[in-house]
Amino acid sequence: MPVAHIVYVHPEPRSFVAALRDTVRDNLAAQGWEVTLSDLHACGFDPVVRASDFPVRQDPDYLNYALEQRHAVAANQLAPDIRREMEAVLRADLLVLVFPIFWFSVPALLKGWIDRVFLSGVFYGGKRIYAQGGMAGKRALVVASLGGREHMFGPGALHGELDGMLRPLLQGTLGYCGFEVLQPFFAYHVPYLEADQRSAILARLAGELACLPSRPALPMPDLTRYDEVFRPRMP
Amino acid sequence: MPVAHIVYVHPEPRSFVAALRDTVRDNLAAQGWEVTLSDLHACGFDPVVRASDFPVRQDPDYLNYALEQRHAVAANQLAPDIRREMEAVLRADLLVLVFPIFWFSVPALLKGWIDRVFLSGVFYGGKRIYAQGGMAGKRALVVASLGGREHMFGPGALHGELDGMLRPLLQGTLGYCGFEVLQPFFAYHVPYLEADQRSAILARLAGELACLPSRPALPMPDLTRYDEVFRPRMP
Repeated sequence: MPVAHIVYVHPEPRSFVAALRDTVRDNLAAQGWEVTLSDLHACGFDPVVRASDFPVRQDPDYLNYALEQRHAVAANQLAPDIRREMEAVLRADLLVLVFPIFWFSVPALLKGWIDRVFLSGVFYGGKRIYAQGGMAGKRALVVASLGGREHMFGPGALHGELDGMLRPLLQGTLGYCGFEVLQPFFAYHVPYLEADQRSAILARLAGELACLPSRPALPMPDLTRYDEVFRPRMP
Repeated sequence: MPVAHIVYVHPEPRSFVAALRDTVRDNLAAQGWEVTLSDLHACGFDPVVRASDFPVRQDPDYLNYALEQRHAVAANQLAPDIRREMEAVLRADLLVLVFPIFWFSVPALLKGWIDRVFLSGVFYGGKRIYAQGGMAGKRALVVASLGGREHMFGPGALHGELDGMLRPLLQGTLGYCGFEVLQPFFAYHVPYLEADQRSAILARLAGELACLPSRPALPMPDLTRYDEVFRPRMP
């Protein structure tokens, strides 16, 4: 049975983003997926990188967070919450991030889940990035709400392309770690919609989830075009 | 006396990013600026948006964070930490964000400072964005470190353009609120540098700070090109 892990963030339990989460969960379960969930507000996840993330330090005098991550992985000394979240991602075939877009990006709580859980040495490391990343073979899907209207995004539009605004997440984080990053699902203008418009978005999401196997993936940098220090190769 | 407010984030007090912060502080002070500082790790800033940010709720049953922000501003009922940080920004002529780039973006702690402090109704609201934003007349400067090398960024490079990766911050946050966003300062490859290379970066930063009045600003969307619902006007 394939496994989907949903990471969900919203400060209001009855929000439309919670309905997006439930739509993902119910539709994937109906298709035969095992669905697991991290609700980052409900579990009180701490998003701040701290020295205390490493009960046993490789260097107690100077915190290099990524080096301590690698050491904690190798020494099997991860903080319990980081281990729990890491294992949930490792078990999954599909990672689904469900969140409201704050400032053209993820909320701090989800950013901190990435900062702390996407461990150096497991998710990436050295030249293990993009197609060689630690998550190669898994897929990732972003399902996000925003207040802006669709016409504010795109070539020549006010804010430019929304995929471009989310490139640090889609390419720089998920793609970087090796996930095949599926075309994201956006719910626009959410705070201003009527109930029937919200229902139509949930129906559109359900319809797209039914076609998940054929959902297009975003292009990522092709490592064969770069040399051993990631300089572009001469054509 | 002009005022510069530095917002600084790093989990290691003796990091190179702390040296970048000190270089900004000392050089601006020597030029006659009053310099204030928010050290987000040291002050234990909470980066998570929560219902408890609003001791008096406009709607106690359903949390719409931006609407409660507007209400709390109007009712003079801001949480003490949000008020303190907001007032520091309002007092400043120049906002300087000093941080390590995590995942092509700000650390969660700085993202949460933005999520909670950049209040709807003060920093932006309705059509008060970009040149009409609440921070119009102020300038903002990003000073950031990263592990990547300079050749990994740019047109045709592995990760694409670094300014593009930071567009959610530079345009979607600072520019959106009306700041004139100065060309950012990046320190590349920092974890792998020798002491003399780090000193050279600090010297380059000091030199650029000496020319701050003529530092170029990044282009932002021109609101006159969009109609009253921010649709592109016909040419």
